[in-house]
Amino acid sequence: MQRIPFEKLYDAFHRVLLKTDLAPDRAELCARIFAENSRDGVYSHGLNRFPGFVRHIRSGRIDIGAAAQKAGGLGALEQWDGRLGPGPVNATLCMDRAIALAGEHGIGCVGLRNTNHWMRAGAYGLQAADAGCIGLCWTNTGPLMPPWGSATRKIGNNPLVIAVPRPEGHILLDMAMSQFSGGKTEVYRRSRRPFPVPGGYDSAGALTCDPDAIHESKRPLPIGYWKGSGLAVLLDLVAALVSGGRSTCQIGRQKEEYGVSQVFIAINVRTAPHLVQTVEEAVQDLHSAPSLDQNTPVRYPGEGMLQTRQDNLKNGIPVDADYWQEVLEM
Amino acid sequence: MQRIPFEKLYDAFHRVLLKTDLAPDRAELCARIFAENSRDGVYSHGLNRFPGFVRHIRSGRIDIGAAAQKAGGLGALEQWDGRLGPGPVNATLCMDRAIALAGEHGIGCVGLRNTNHWMRAGAYGLQAADAGCIGLCWTNTGPLMPPWGSATRKIGNNPLVIAVPRPEGHILLDMAMSQFSGGKTEVYRRSRRPFPVPGGYDSAGALTCDPDAIHESKRPLPIGYWKGSGLAVLLDLVAALVSGGRSTCQIGRQKEEYGVSQVFIAINVRTAPHLVQTVEEAVQDLHSAPSLDQNTPVRYPGEGMLQTRQDNLKNGIPVDADYWQEVLEM
Repeated sequence: MQRIPFEKLYDAFHRVLLKTDLAPDRAELCARIFAENSRDGVYSHGLNRFPGFVRHIRSGRIDIGAAAQKAGGLGALEQWDGRLGPGPVNATLCMDRAIALAGEHGIGCVGLRNTNHWMRAGAYGLQAADAGCIGLCWTNTGPLMPPWGSATRKIGNNPLVIAVPRPEGHILLDMAMSQFSGGKTEVYRRSRRPFPVPGGYDSAGALTCDPDAIHESKRPLPIGYWKGSGLAVLLDLVAALVSGGRSTCQIGRQKEEYGVSQVFIAINVRTAPHLVQTVEEAVQDLHSAPSLDQNTPVRYPGEGMLQTRQDNLKNGIPVDADYWQEVLEM
Repeated sequence: MQRIPFEKLYDAFHRVLLKTDLAPDRAELCARIFAENSRDGVYSHGLNRFPGFVRHIRSGRIDIGAAAQKAGGLGALEQWDGRLGPGPVNATLCMDRAIALAGEHGIGCVGLRNTNHWMRAGAYGLQAADAGCIGLCWTNTGPLMPPWGSATRKIGNNPLVIAVPRPEGHILLDMAMSQFSGGKTEVYRRSRRPFPVPGGYDSAGALTCDPDAIHESKRPLPIGYWKGSGLAVLLDLVAALVSGGRSTCQIGRQKEEYGVSQVFIAINVRTAPHLVQTVEEAVQDLHSAPSLDQNTPVRYPGEGMLQTRQDNLKNGIPVDADYWQEVLEM
């Protein structure tokens, strides 16, 4: 697979976005977010998603000129209206607001309604951690998964992010509610590999490791069966209530997925006692766990991502030839 | 199985607790929490756990006279030191603080360190919802589960609670990080039933539905394999950092589990636009999902618990004869 330097990927995204008439500061921000997502190994929401993002800009689904507006709030809690602007721009702004509120009030919470897909959820957790805060954020989606006990899609795949700052590399959880996210499922399908554990049901209702069969049945498996299903329901409701925006079932009544609801929470731990020591002890304790696989030590959440980042910065970012060619021709 | 009226269960707990010299207001609070946990079907943290709670009071592990103290804070974020007092008393106080902070700042967050087992996690989510707030809370524990990739216990089973207020009965997620909580595992073991889905690994490293084999191997399965393992790590770190308290690996260095760390978040949605309508629409949408099992409609999280509560209030609370006899003789 071809590997491209980070700067070259960024420049290609930046050039294409400027041609869409996205404002220069927004083009820079979005190009950076897409390039960093690929840099960190999240190709499904980096290069692979970029052509679709540009198509949504060109079709007008994303309003490139819309500026998010504060719609309400009380102290450390604010509601913002994303006005169907670019998802990564709105999300970055709202996590910035949560960080600022946390600086003032200890914790800050921003509910963002009426926004578009933010691409990689983890990006906004890392943003909070870069500012020395614990970051929690999640988004709802349209109905992408059946609730437990049904085969009919009703609930969102609402990715949940928790990030803890760490000088040597943040701890980052970034997980969809299905055993394999939509992006990961696409990666397995394109490489014609089976999932390592069952990822959903086939059309006959049997658990399967075949990503094509799950794509066909539209029955991804929630993590922990009923538990991931329940977590998806609650994350959706909290996002809709805190932002005053659409819930998953309301998004489902539209022809397409837009106007989703998101939550951004930052907690100020810059003065937390023993912050660095507590985190390092936990990391060392995990690393000391005897591994069941000689070739893979036990890792903290986000550790594999940091290793991929270093490798990609050193050796270039692997690009899917089709998507890369598509971007070059844009 | 014998069924006991709620008041009779409460009175029995109350009588025993007063004999331990717990202060009258604390005896009332703890008796209510234990009785309500059984009322809601969480017998593992109601009657079944009560004799152990009393033993911990008598042995001095729980300091019945200790009053939690505010140890720090900024605006909407506070740290409290539980001083090894009774877990349910400390937890109730800290969720009350979070609710009060949410009234003032929109959101409130309290980190509680140095506390003891709070029994049923969901109780404190319901407390926030009763006050018209969204409630999020979790606790860490000692090392009860292997992290993904290891067979050695290193991570906590850190139950996570999210509650959304609803006039006809709150929506409540209350979930351990293992596919079956410690309490649920005990219920299956006592009734000699297999789990409906694999709940962990046996000592040979194979996935199994046998609760005894998992009890033996000490290898419960995290929900969603690596995902639940990662979520457990993050919930632990956030609890330890926000409270300034012990992390799971630090608790693991003690001979027994005490002095755990907890987080209580309340979000003020009393003025949220369309609060009731958004929640009702989501509930109706879930109820409209075609069920795979004719006898069990698709339910929202907490709905089964509410049905159990109504049944138990009407027909009496089922009690395990051994535990009930033990309490009567205390």
